[in-house]
Amino acid sequence: MNECPAGLEIDQQCVNTIRTLSMDAIQKANSGHPGAPMGLAPAAYVLWTRFLKHNPQSPDWHDRDRFVLSGGHASMLLYSLLYLTGYGLTLDDIKNFRQWDSKTPGHPEYGHTTGVETTTGPLGQGFTNAVGMAIAERHLADLFNQPNDQPNNQAGHNIVNHNTFVMCGDGDMMEGITSEAASLAGHLGLSKLICLYDDNRISIEGSTDITFTEDVALRFQAYNWQTITVEDGNNLDEISHAIDAAIKETDKPSLIKLRTHIAFGSPNKQDTADAHGAPLGEEEIKLTKACLGCLPDEQFCVPEEVLDHCRGFAQKGADVEEKWNAMFDAYKNQFPELAAQWDAMMTGSYDDQWEAALPDFSDSKGPIATRSASGTVLNAAADNIPSLIGGSADLAPSNKTFLNGSSEFQKETYSGRNIRFGVREHAMGGILNGMSLHKGLRPFGGTFLVFADYMRPAIRLAALMNQPIIYVFTHDSVAVGEDGPTHQPVEHLTSLRMIPDLTVIRPADATETAAAWRHAIKSSDTPTALILSRQKLPVIDRSVYPSADMLEKGAYVLTDSDGTPDVILIATGSEVSISMEAAKILGEKGKAARVVNMPSWELFDKMPQAYKDKILPPAIKARIAVEAGLPLGWEKYTGDDGAIIGISTFGASAPGSTVLKNFGFTADNIVETALKTVGSRQ
Amino acid sequence: MNECPAGLEIDQQCVNTIRTLSMDAIQKANSGHPGAPMGLAPAAYVLWTRFLKHNPQSPDWHDRDRFVLSGGHASMLLYSLLYLTGYGLTLDDIKNFRQWDSKTPGHPEYGHTTGVETTTGPLGQGFTNAVGMAIAERHLADLFNQPNDQPNNQAGHNIVNHNTFVMCGDGDMMEGITSEAASLAGHLGLSKLICLYDDNRISIEGSTDITFTEDVALRFQAYNWQTITVEDGNNLDEISHAIDAAIKETDKPSLIKLRTHIAFGSPNKQDTADAHGAPLGEEEIKLTKACLGCLPDEQFCVPEEVLDHCRGFAQKGADVEEKWNAMFDAYKNQFPELAAQWDAMMTGSYDDQWEAALPDFSDSKGPIATRSASGTVLNAAADNIPSLIGGSADLAPSNKTFLNGSSEFQKETYSGRNIRFGVREHAMGGILNGMSLHKGLRPFGGTFLVFADYMRPAIRLAALMNQPIIYVFTHDSVAVGEDGPTHQPVEHLTSLRMIPDLTVIRPADATETAAAWRHAIKSSDTPTALILSRQKLPVIDRSVYPSADMLEKGAYVLTDSDGTPDVILIATGSEVSISMEAAKILGEKGKAARVVNMPSWELFDKMPQAYKDKILPPAIKARIAVEAGLPLGWEKYTGDDGAIIGISTFGASAPGSTVLKNFGFTADNIVETALKTVGSRQ
Repeated sequence: MNECPAGLEIDQQCVNTIRTLSMDAIQKANSGHPGAPMGLAPAAYVLWTRFLKHNPQSPDWHDRDRFVLSGGHASMLLYSLLYLTGYGLTLDDIKNFRQWDSKTPGHPEYGHTTGVETTTGPLGQGFTNAVGMAIAERHLADLFNQPNDQPNNQAGHNIVNHNTFVMCGDGDMMEGITSEAASLAGHLGLSKLICLYDDNRISIEGSTDITFTEDVALRFQAYNWQTITVEDGNNLDEISHAIDAAIKETDKPSLIKLRTHIAFGSPNKQDTADAHGAPLGEEEIKLTKACLGCLPDEQFCVPEEVLDHCRGFAQKGADVEEKWNAMFDAYKNQFPELAAQWDAMMTGSYDDQWEAALPDFSDSKGPIATRSASGTVLNAAADNIPSLIGGSADLAPSNKTFLNGSSEFQKETYSGRNIRFGVREHAMGGILNGMSLHKGLRPFGGTFLVFADYMRPAIRLAALMNQPIIYVFTHDSVAVGEDGPTHQPVEHLTSLRMIPDLTVIRPADATETAAAWRHAIKSSDTPTALILSRQKLPVIDRSVYPSADMLEKGAYVLTDSDGTPDVILIATGSEVSISMEAAKILGEKGKAARVVNMPSWELFDKMPQAYKDKILPPAIKARIAVEAGLPLGWEKYTGDDGAIIGISTFGASAPGSTVLKNFGFTADNIVETALKTVGSRQ
Repeated sequence: MNECPAGLEIDQQCVNTIRTLSMDAIQKANSGHPGAPMGLAPAAYVLWTRFLKHNPQSPDWHDRDRFVLSGGHASMLLYSLLYLTGYGLTLDDIKNFRQWDSKTPGHPEYGHTTGVETTTGPLGQGFTNAVGMAIAERHLADLFNQPNDQPNNQAGHNIVNHNTFVMCGDGDMMEGITSEAASLAGHLGLSKLICLYDDNRISIEGSTDITFTEDVALRFQAYNWQTITVEDGNNLDEISHAIDAAIKETDKPSLIKLRTHIAFGSPNKQDTADAHGAPLGEEEIKLTKACLGCLPDEQFCVPEEVLDHCRGFAQKGADVEEKWNAMFDAYKNQFPELAAQWDAMMTGSYDDQWEAALPDFSDSKGPIATRSASGTVLNAAADNIPSLIGGSADLAPSNKTFLNGSSEFQKETYSGRNIRFGVREHAMGGILNGMSLHKGLRPFGGTFLVFADYMRPAIRLAALMNQPIIYVFTHDSVAVGEDGPTHQPVEHLTSLRMIPDLTVIRPADATETAAAWRHAIKSSDTPTALILSRQKLPVIDRSVYPSADMLEKGAYVLTDSDGTPDVILIATGSEVSISMEAAKILGEKGKAARVVNMPSWELFDKMPQAYKDKILPPAIKARIAVEAGLPLGWEKYTGDDGAIIGISTFGASAPGSTVLKNFGFTADNIVETALKTVGSRQ
């Protein structure tokens, strides 16, 4: 610990410590982005110490303010704050920046570093997560808050009452996902959402003048946001006033535009793109420290009074939480049922009733599209699980995602559980992540499978952060029909299967759709993509065939031959029933066929080898995969001597049944392929 | 042919014919979106007949105005116009709407129906294509137009001087890609870009009041667009005045907000979401026709005078083209070199000089990152191919995409070939498509491989439309290092391989990078994704090893053992050199190893079976794939008895070499895996 040169006030010393720690850590790692932390240090410091309602000693306390660093490349800003305010990071962690297994990876990682509310780095995602968090806050507030009728309890029964702060840079502002999310946030009037926009006018390629000259504040006004400008991003009081004004606004979200300087204090690199993504260099760091009034030769300098001052805020945080705890105790007394529901939602524990209430479709009179079954199942589940909340990107009638038992989530009705995401798939993905990260909710979202591409970066982050989002992807193959190739997924199913830690399930019928939802709801740390048909599919008679609960194993034998099969047909979704038909014809032709229904590769891959070998015995080499999607990847299951009936090209516009037929998804073609495959092995 | 009831003027009859054809075709197909064509008919009719510079008899004439229907679900609007104005569609084609092999698929498909400028349907893409077309127009104009010094040639030598019109709906406006593209268009001052925004306030889920209440015009003003409102979208003169004003604006792109009514004229469905995506029903169609003043019982009614009137405009188009041809002849005389360059660019023919000028890296002194080699190659190619134009989504210094021999494409310097896309990956993708569709340019665009996800929908459309875009995806594996899992691609390489008709190439060294660029440039109807390393890779000595031209075959034997190999190592990109190292060690251990370098699955898959069997002899079962990406899909090449060294989880933040090592990408691990695999087969 060192002393600072005389003359700097404590606040300024703290701000400079954030800057010097950032510079030093990045220099030591020889990798990182020093510019943004240095420019944003004053705003971040003011926010964290004067406004942020949080308790470093209880970092997951429910009613804390959320803080999202959307420009995750400024990670050292966050790590400096976490270290200084006592979230458990040590100076050694800071010195270990960007090293294997360190607590301080290149970009902030949720679940890896205490106090990090979300994983950021891919631009625009953090902003959108923040919108999701603010949605969760308003929803829970509307559900749980109660008017205060106890005069001594000045806080009232506002047990959910926190702000969501998000720091963004120019890069975030350029990304389309941010536009989508900001438009929705403005529509919803999420006034407890406050964005601090780091208007440093520098991007990696140079000044933003070369590509980004729009009027960001005016754009946000068009979205129905309050906008505030801080002309001097180094003026702590000006920053304070702006945040104050943002908090006081109760009708609109707020954008605080901070005019900052990238790499503030660096005599040769301030306001240049050079400072964006590379260490400043040892000489420049010395010069900068001298300019800032710090000791030029000190590395990782944290003056004792700085640490004392920053750690001192922990008590403030503890006091706030204690007050909240007292309020919650009173609330619990007065509203025991609500308090119990609160506990259940916050811990994600549901009673068993919801499972029993799921439809089993055993008395269905005819074929059912799995998207329709999904709608029925979702509604049944939602009636018993109050945390299920979501919607669709303007396709609710097609995706069957509307909860009939609930109202819309709108500005005047935040307790509604039907979110109208609009034609904003990417924002939907990021918002679902934010809602889930907030805790208390189990969000779902729907669109056509082909448009999963629009939200893929957000899906990847859900998987990376182990958030149990449920995606309802309907219209799952060329059977979409008339809408044609732009609306017909081909590669999407398997390209989703490629995302690590995402479970993809394509149920074969209505009953299995219920089992798929059950699995998805029970998954606590994995997102699930449900892949559902537009067209009606026969409901498999489960009194004759194995239970749909077998879905949990990823794949199972649906129909088998007597004795060793000559051929195994492996199918998913809408191709299961035609494979069963094909198996029957094969039987008539004297070939014993087994039908393996494989709704989920991921679940099957997790089964013990013995089970896998039972379903797909290594000795039976004639295996035909049947799926109305790209063949690539099926080789894993069909093996060297198998065959794949899939689609390697884009689809075509025509009635769905015509398209399926013309692409070879007929029992006859399966039979023919099977006979050839068996034949070639004899 | 029929006569209309008396009383309607010809223009109104034409407008109504668009409406009735749309209703009838959708009813017959029992599928489609009647609402938007009916609401937009007046604006589309005015635009096509009073303003659009085009020649139905010469639909690809270079200086035609471009027309993009971004809301591709309104395809019947476009088909009606193409039929009425004489683009070759017949009434039977209209009656065959959305049927197998028809000229009138569900959404407009480029290359399938004459007069369709781009494939639309996925929202926001068409708008963004239009921005790309307008960029291409300004670039070519700045390159080729010459001041007029011939007093009799009133048109001047503006051989490139056309507008790009795009029709958008609320869905387009909600999509983030539209925001990104609009921001860039405003920055670039693309005044010849004119957007007609169908403000019908209805989306699939209902009124836009439920999710989309922003002030779109104000937002576009923030982007630096002129905005004009047409209060009555049925008033042909008001529409005319607005388009006139938009054309006159020479500083900014224009947004014309048309207040329209979905399903105009339908007594029970106008202004309702019901009319969005389903036929109106026979009864409602009759009522609507009566309301519009048409004959209620006539189907596919096209009054003779309507057809005559609309087909009559063809002569106007022919005259305009003829005038242009005369101008171009004069231009050719005066500027023969430019005219020759024009012809070369428009036909995509380059002389051979560019190939000879590509660097071969044979005298390189040390290892070179393939991204750096790519930058060198691109610059060498661009010096000889004037149509190469592009940039990066704010990562030019990292992607090495900057053309040193050219200036920036900016408002005052449209001849520059360095486009600053900003942090707008998705818009970049859509703009590249539009530039390519315009003809005359070979666009490229770069970002980190991990962010290919942000632009995936646009990549898919490039492939669907057979546009030879070149994608420069650098930082191609966990070797990215310190930036951590959010920046480390794992599943991206293979998920790109899944897109039909996209060629993915991951070169092993600098020399092969040149070969990859050569292949990409020579591809005339396939987009190519170049997958390039951040880290330096050894340059393979091509005087010892096979020529990098072998890349054309997708895979080739790089080093071989004497006699039959015991094991085949199949590697790509940065894993090729460590596989060569491993092969050497294996040799020392008495195991004969072949190294197959497989830069492109797609190219290899196209080779004759005999070649494939030569490279991967079926008898040699011990095959190890080595790639720092997801293993899934490699089974196709490794077979039942092979092994895959890949990464099935997200990466980690640490120096790249540490990450690679910890994930098993070492010669030793390859050797160990190979020995095990060989052993298990003996």
